[in-house]
Amino acid sequence: MAKHRQLHLGAFMRPAAIHTGAWRYPGADPHANFSLEQMRRSIRRLEEAKFDAFFMADHLALLNMPIAALMRSHTVTSFEPFTLLSALSAVTERIGLIATASTTFDAPYHIAKRFASLDHLSGGRAGWNVVTTANPDAALNFGYESQMDHDDRYERAREFVEVVTGLWDSFADDAFVRDTESGVFVDPARIHAISHKGPSLKVQGPLNIARPPQGWPVIVQAGASPAGRQLAAETAEVIFGAPPTIEAARSFNADVRSRMAAIGRAPDTLRYLPGAFVVVADSMNEALERRATLDSLVHYDSGIGSLNSMLGFDVSDHDPDGPLPEIPETEAGRSQRERMVNLAREKGLTIRELARAAGSYSGFAFVGTATSIADEMQEWLETEASDGFNVMFPWIPGGLDEVIDKLVPELQRRGLFRREYEGRTLREHLGLPRPSNRFFPPEHEVLTRTSSV
Amino acid sequence: MAKHRQLHLGAFMRPAAIHTGAWRYPGADPHANFSLEQMRRSIRRLEEAKFDAFFMADHLALLNMPIAALMRSHTVTSFEPFTLLSALSAVTERIGLIATASTTFDAPYHIAKRFASLDHLSGGRAGWNVVTTANPDAALNFGYESQMDHDDRYERAREFVEVVTGLWDSFADDAFVRDTESGVFVDPARIHAISHKGPSLKVQGPLNIARPPQGWPVIVQAGASPAGRQLAAETAEVIFGAPPTIEAARSFNADVRSRMAAIGRAPDTLRYLPGAFVVVADSMNEALERRATLDSLVHYDSGIGSLNSMLGFDVSDHDPDGPLPEIPETEAGRSQRERMVNLAREKGLTIRELARAAGSYSGFAFVGTATSIADEMQEWLETEASDGFNVMFPWIPGGLDEVIDKLVPELQRRGLFRREYEGRTLREHLGLPRPSNRFFPPEHEVLTRTSSV
Ligand SMILES: Cc1cc2nc3c(=O)[nH]c(=O)nc-3n(C[C@H](O)[C@H](O)[C@H](O)COP(=O)(O)O)c2cc1C
Ligand SMILES: Cc1cc2nc3c(=O)[nH]c(=O)nc-3n(C[C@H](O)[C@H](O)[C@H](O)COP(=O)(O)O)c2cc1C
Repeated sequence: MAKHRQLHLGAFMRPAAIHTGAWRYPGADPHANFSLEQMRRSIRRLEEAKFDAFFMADHLALLNMPIAALMRSHTVTSFEPFTLLSALSAVTERIGLIATASTTFDAPYHIAKRFASLDHLSGGRAGWNVVTTANPDAALNFGYESQMDHDDRYERAREFVEVVTGLWDSFADDAFVRDTESGVFVDPARIHAISHKGPSLKVQGPLNIARPPQGWPVIVQAGASPAGRQLAAETAEVIFGAPPTIEAARSFNADVRSRMAAIGRAPDTLRYLPGAFVVVADSMNEALERRATLDSLVHYDSGIGSLNSMLGFDVSDHDPDGPLPEIPETEAGRSQRERMVNLAREKGLTIRELARAAGSYSGFAFVGTATSIADEMQEWLETEASDGFNVMFPWIPGGLDEVIDKLVPELQRRGLFRREYEGRTLREHLGLPRPSNRFFPPEHEVLTRTSSV
Repeated sequence: MAKHRQLHLGAFMRPAAIHTGAWRYPGADPHANFSLEQMRRSIRRLEEAKFDAFFMADHLALLNMPIAALMRSHTVTSFEPFTLLSALSAVTERIGLIATASTTFDAPYHIAKRFASLDHLSGGRAGWNVVTTANPDAALNFGYESQMDHDDRYERAREFVEVVTGLWDSFADDAFVRDTESGVFVDPARIHAISHKGPSLKVQGPLNIARPPQGWPVIVQAGASPAGRQLAAETAEVIFGAPPTIEAARSFNADVRSRMAAIGRAPDTLRYLPGAFVVVADSMNEALERRATLDSLVHYDSGIGSLNSMLGFDVSDHDPDGPLPEIPETEAGRSQRERMVNLAREKGLTIRELARAAGSYSGFAFVGTATSIADEMQEWLETEASDGFNVMFPWIPGGLDEVIDKLVPELQRRGLFRREYEGRTLREHLGLPRPSNRFFPPEHEVLTRTSSV
């Protein structure tokens, strides 16, 4: 354990660079989001810098945007998370590998098996970003006429996580005997079938893969609505998010931790790592110029596409230089809509200004020198706004290299970030306990969160 | 193109060794089926030997067998195919990677995306073994009370393959513009949504990943019933199978090719590679002894478990030394049941003898020296019994090494097997054409099978 609290850093790598102007930035690889070579290079650099994890978002439809925006999207083609992360597991040794998987459009048996397999292949480095899939177009790709209600999605998600963790516990850690003499390979008394019958899911079990090295891959969540926060409080070990300000982060963090306390979960079993767009340069001016250049590369059509998708509502035919109209509730994600609506209300932004904000990343950004950003990050850590960040790079490869070559050494100098990995697994990097097996508890089991899920 | 016809060789690697005594064989790694290290070593050796492909079966339940058999199964824990093959894609360059995926228990959008991703990550080396999942226990893991009817499974499979190949065709091969100057990344006129509405599936599309390097990953099938053969004739480019004799293989091969002719498909667009269990040694006696040793390591409980699962019917409480009772039709796979019933009828085997046959691999086996096996394989090739084999190794690593060190060089000496890969993709290894895009056909499209699916 480190002497004082340290930052945890994830790298948000799908899209490789989230900013819609990223691929046009001078010196950027326009193809980075779909280049195995850039992904391999990036993860090796991130591992060299001792990042906690490489994070892959996932979407189950072309992003819901009009053609004019779609044609400008550099993330229109992307790798699928399990296949990419498995390939990258073979060329890395320590860095965590977090894959996004949907509880709305997949089956718990598949999800449990794939994450267990990734965890075994990587020696305990897997994490599951549990999403309920806010994009309404996804439903049309999975046989539904329309999207499931927001709260129903979260109800199903809760049950889904319970089933998946139960499936991971199918085999006791010591189930495998492998006695060639007697011919006994596995002790059948050390295998458990969950036989789950719930409102959304029926799953018999057992899973046909040994318990993951981490017990369970790390559970990650990014929901921000009350239902999303509640699910996170009940199940998440890492929360990603996109708070617009340090104050918003602090109150989110406090809210989730009080929800945890209310259900008897120890607050120390959670790491909150909000998304942070980082532009670092040798001077503040240079950093601001870079950000401005990037933002200038966001095409209006692209910005309005991002805005529509965040609002869950099409504002393309309103006056770009007028105010945002009234936006109705939809069943898509709520938090992004609220962020945009608040921005419009509080700063009086026009649709054109909102479109640029949406297309150029509207969450929190650190723009400055290594020193100024390290100061800010330290403030986030010390005032309990977060436990670190899920870093979003402005472009690939240069924007990532500058974070690694300039910012990380400064954080290390201050003792805010590790110089070496202390452990081997993602749980160890994050300082999270290994869950015990709910069906095969150790002899003197102390009550931990494991048993409360 | 080679001067005369050559063998194609796949390696059946999940289970790493299919024989239920394999893990107990002297010198075998009892953990081979679930050892990344053995998998990595195996695939590198197979690539060194220029095998066409590494093949991963997949099952969606613990095999349906009684506890007494289950506890003796070295395949009770296995890697999931996409994760393992993606990891192995990173440590190999040429060998094909065939993953099994079920059309009964998965969604076409997921399957299309994962295979496309694996094909991109591996530079065009992916293949899809299309299965309908015969194991009735799988249904219980996916929310169903009972298994879908055999023929309904195949109806759905046909539609599923059509949807998946349609999703692969979502982007024209030249859709990506990536013009940083104008900010146009993709040409929207070169993206197509299938908008499929069929009896089993509704899928809007488009897929959010570029068309695979191979156009479509190679379509593989292993069904053996009339419905299975018909699906293969309509869609498969490679057929695996488990014929018990060369005559059975020849008639199967002829049957499928006549089904192809009946629907206007060119017979040369199919490779038939039946499973072949290969035990090679320096003398015939030694080879026979090895096989006998292996078979002696099959525990009766394990054999009866395999037999029950092949029959889709539990015969455990019948007299082991009596005849096989009447076996009713079930909705599980038909061909395995028929094989066992015929074996009992034709050779008058008792339940105990059938159990040993089931547990020790009941399909065709080549047991002998490099010369005798090469003679036999040549006969299969020259008499149109098959286009090669899906090799099953008796144990890992020694049994695999002997095939590579003894048999392959003999096949190469005879000009029956490549000494170097001529192409880069699995299609190229197999001599199969790259399908054109059904929505974006080349200007002077010749009618090929692509358009007939
Ligand atoms: C950093 C971050 C990453 C996310 N990644 C994904 C993703 O990969 N796939 C997805 O469907 N949603 C993703 N989301 C969306 C969330 O899962 C969630 O739907 C959204 O934050 C809205 O929250 P709510 O559903 O609780 O309203 C992400 C959100 C954030 C902040
Ligand atoms: C070599 C070989 C490999 C197979 N691999 C799988 C597999 O991985 N998963 C699966 O569910 N079925 C697998 N099967 C079973 C077939 O898909 C099919 O269900 C079986 O041959 C019965 O055929 P039928 O369903 O047409 O009667 C395999 C069969 C063979 C011969």
